Amino acid sequence: MDKFFLEKADINTPKLFEKEVTSAKTVKIVPDESAFFGVRTEDAGELDRIFHPGDRFILDFGDHCVGYLSFRLRHADRYLDAPVRLRLRFGEIPYELSREFSDYHGGLCASWLQEDIINVDFPEIVRLPRRYCFRYLEVTVLYTPRDVMLSDFSVRCVTSADRSRLKPLPAGIDPELAAIDRVAAKTLEDCMQTAYEDGPKRDRRLWTGDLRLQALTDHYLFGNNALARRCLYLFAACEEDGKFLPGCLYQKPAVFYDDMQMPDYALLYCAALCDYYEFTKDTETAKDLFPTAVRQTKLACSLIGEDGVIHSVVGWCFIDWAPNIRTCAPLQGVLMYTLEKMAALAEALGENSIADEFINTLELSRKAAYQVLFDKEKSAILSPSDDYQYSVQAQAWMILGGALIGEEGKAALTHALASGDSVKPVTPYMHHYVVEAMMKLGMKEEALSYIKSYWGSMVKHGADTFWEAYVPGNPDVSPYSDIIMNSYCHAWSCSPSYFIRRYFAEA
Amino acid sequence: MDKFFLEKADINTPKLFEKEVTSAKTVKIVPDESAFFGVRTEDAGELDRIFHPGDRFILDFGDHCVGYLSFRLRHADRYLDAPVRLRLRFGEIPYELSREFSDYHGGLCASWLQEDIINVDFPEIVRLPRRYCFRYLEVTVLYTPRDVMLSDFSVRCVTSADRSRLKPLPAGIDPELAAIDRVAAKTLEDCMQTAYEDGPKRDRRLWTGDLRLQALTDHYLFGNNALARRCLYLFAACEEDGKFLPGCLYQKPAVFYDDMQMPDYALLYCAALCDYYEFTKDTETAKDLFPTAVRQTKLACSLIGEDGVIHSVVGWCFIDWAPNIRTCAPLQGVLMYTLEKMAALAEALGENSIADEFINTLELSRKAAYQVLFDKEKSAILSPSDDYQYSVQAQAWMILGGALIGEEGKAALTHALASGDSVKPVTPYMHHYVVEAMMKLGMKEEALSYIKSYWGSMVKHGADTFWEAYVPGNPDVSPYSDIIMNSYCHAWSCSPSYFIRRYFAEA
Repeated sequence: MDKFFLEKADINTPKLFEKEVTSAKTVKIVPDESAFFGVRTEDAGELDRIFHPGDRFILDFGDHCVGYLSFRLRHADRYLDAPVRLRLRFGEIPYELSREFSDYHGGLCASWLQEDIINVDFPEIVRLPRRYCFRYLEVTVLYTPRDVMLSDFSVRCVTSADRSRLKPLPAGIDPELAAIDRVAAKTLEDCMQTAYEDGPKRDRRLWTGDLRLQALTDHYLFGNNALARRCLYLFAACEEDGKFLPGCLYQKPAVFYDDMQMPDYALLYCAALCDYYEFTKDTETAKDLFPTAVRQTKLACSLIGEDGVIHSVVGWCFIDWAPNIRTCAPLQGVLMYTLEKMAALAEALGENSIADEFINTLELSRKAAYQVLFDKEKSAILSPSDDYQYSVQAQAWMILGGALIGEEGKAALTHALASGDSVKPVTPYMHHYVVEAMMKLGMKEEALSYIKSYWGSMVKHGADTFWEAYVPGNPDVSPYSDIIMNSYCHAWSCSPSYFIRRYFAEA
Repeated sequence: MDKFFLEKADINTPKLFEKEVTSAKTVKIVPDESAFFGVRTEDAGELDRIFHPGDRFILDFGDHCVGYLSFRLRHADRYLDAPVRLRLRFGEIPYELSREFSDYHGGLCASWLQEDIINVDFPEIVRLPRRYCFRYLEVTVLYTPRDVMLSDFSVRCVTSADRSRLKPLPAGIDPELAAIDRVAAKTLEDCMQTAYEDGPKRDRRLWTGDLRLQALTDHYLFGNNALARRCLYLFAACEEDGKFLPGCLYQKPAVFYDDMQMPDYALLYCAALCDYYEFTKDTETAKDLFPTAVRQTKLACSLIGEDGVIHSVVGWCFIDWAPNIRTCAPLQGVLMYTLEKMAALAEALGENSIADEFINTLELSRKAAYQVLFDKEKSAILSPSDDYQYSVQAQAWMILGGALIGEEGKAALTHALASGDSVKPVTPYMHHYVVEAMMKLGMKEEALSYIKSYWGSMVKHGADTFWEAYVPGNPDVSPYSDIIMNSYCHAWSCSPSYFIRRYFAEA
């Protein structure tokens, strides 16, 4: 790994802000057919402080928390002459705690499900060393020799977001938008740690695709430029010759990455660098990282075939969690979107020949994509593979890449969204680019109503933070085959605040 | 609590010596009908360092350990992209790990069974914060996203015993005695922490009865006078007007005691003070604590009825874990044993009128006990209750109290031990006083053979440290209805080293 870049990343490590959140409010989780996940909470009164073996309660902390739990454990009547064993389970949403974790049947490792069994040897303030991510805490008293008092439950919440920098929305703003913005800002806040994490419950990694949307949105919320800078340097440190950047990296115990090339995410790294320069005009950082971004962009260009179209990818091209999504056409959109931004950055840095080269490639690619992939009958770009897949993802990215424009672009996107045949987005991440495509085509009204309908309905379903995956009307969508593994505070879902604050924050 | 005494206790808090013990030796636990507990270990080779979900192994650390476990957890081939969840179970003896702890059916709280489930979020050196007490460690890999490497298992053992002070036994000593002494010394060493704990696996409290035997034996082993002093002050701090001292106390989170008066243990507190003065001639401490000891002795004297015999007790008179043991006669023995020692201490401190008073009471009590309780037909002291219980415990304590002497004493003890009718000792603690009674009667040969037969057979059964309860031929004896709850390193079982080093350590 590049030591210079690692050092730059290191000196930009943010301090974490801390906030205590306490709760003595208990709830029950009860079935409710009208609730999105089939359950809701019901008030169960103030925390009874005295517990017997087998007792169980659920505390509601009132909002999503990322941090360190502590509580007080004391004897009630007589001294506790043996350890007290407690089971703690944490849920971001009530549904998680309505399930037994032992029934988990998904693909990812079950250890992500937030459960700990602890033994408390002496009555004391118990401080748990692990960071948890939750609003709801279930405590089960597995063993206690005598009645035990449990009280003073508190979470030391941590974030690198400075809430004091958050500008209030105009007083008269549409309350629906205000509510969406609040949840989006909280989502980003809780994902902002020593890097932009994808989800603080699970994974907790820095992914390029998430980074791009987080840094973009953060510019309009907390403005933590140092954090964006740190993350950009971290990825650059992990570049290997002739390879796409790793899709994600780990910070602990030391900076580390796995061998996972992701061409679309590598391009969005370049886009994130362009955003960063646009917002900060920080030439030093831009110059440090420009060569990496150029190499990544050129590497993606090398995927373009002789007919000017991408026919196959290298590594894992993500695009969206939609099952069986064909990624070549969307990837070409991502590439063109990036080429346009990179050309502008090159020009700003005085790298005119690179700028010219990228503009040239971009124009050829736009033409070729349209000529080779546009299907007149469907009025849409189809993927260049055997099954000619028709997807919203391809239309959105081809619009963002400039291969579909104007009324034809509007029609392609609108029809794809309405069609019964097309592959639809599954993640708020992909929905972001649908909205961005609308904005590019001047469909401001449609974009606004799309945000209200998509993210707004999560708010109506009680989301404190936006979810990793969401398909209206279908609560069973999980990339991991079991929705208790889903992250319910996911970085890539925070971008409504970007749209609201950039375009829709008039009174 | 008395602040002056607490401060004195505090300044005598010992430092703990640390020693690293490592292991990479794995064993299997296999059935063996010839083994006392029905199982034995079998070598299973060096620790295989790479593990998959569901794998399980048992490490043998080679000797009993009290301390803090650490180990190294790393990825094998690919990075661990989720927490690793491990179950750890600790056993002092192999039998504990041959059982599922969920099958425990005893009376004490199951939380004492040493089990922890831990989640390791990042590959690292894992250091467990709790103190464990074990020779055998079972590790089960509950969840890991990928192959995991586990290695460098190490225990930071702690004790306040300074092993450098332990004098070697004479070179030509009977190897059977040397083996018993080694196990006894290890037992005491592992129970010596910031107080003389009764058992480091479970309870971990300072009990007066255990303190007395520990301090007595420690004088001949590690000579930690400050620790004895600390413990004596701790109990004195807990004295309440007109009450027997609490039977035990806790040190954490602060010095604390429960409302449990124990007359026999309170008297043995006085005996321990007398021992302490005898060994140290520390007049300052003796004078500080003498008034407490006098009050406790007099309180016990007040239990003597008009006929000169104790007919009922206050609180919990322990004597032994033998089921349904009648405690009045043994208690009177304990009282007389203490009166004799207290009279000597009073005289040494110049408190002659107290000395005279105690001698006077002692003589009356001896006469009355013999007259009222000695049964000519059985040639034994019987308990002064409806069922006239015949017990070894009563004979031993009446000998130690001087009510049974000479040949009549020898006959009473010998017959009680051999009789099919008598209640027999269950604990090494009570067996200590049987041996002490033999020594008082000059039965040195019998005492030696008793030690070899009782404690020696535990050594033959593979004991690394002496057990809390032991009845030869009966592996099912437990005060708690399930032998996995028993402590297999119990302070009150350490006293063979006292007898060996004081009386039998000739070459």
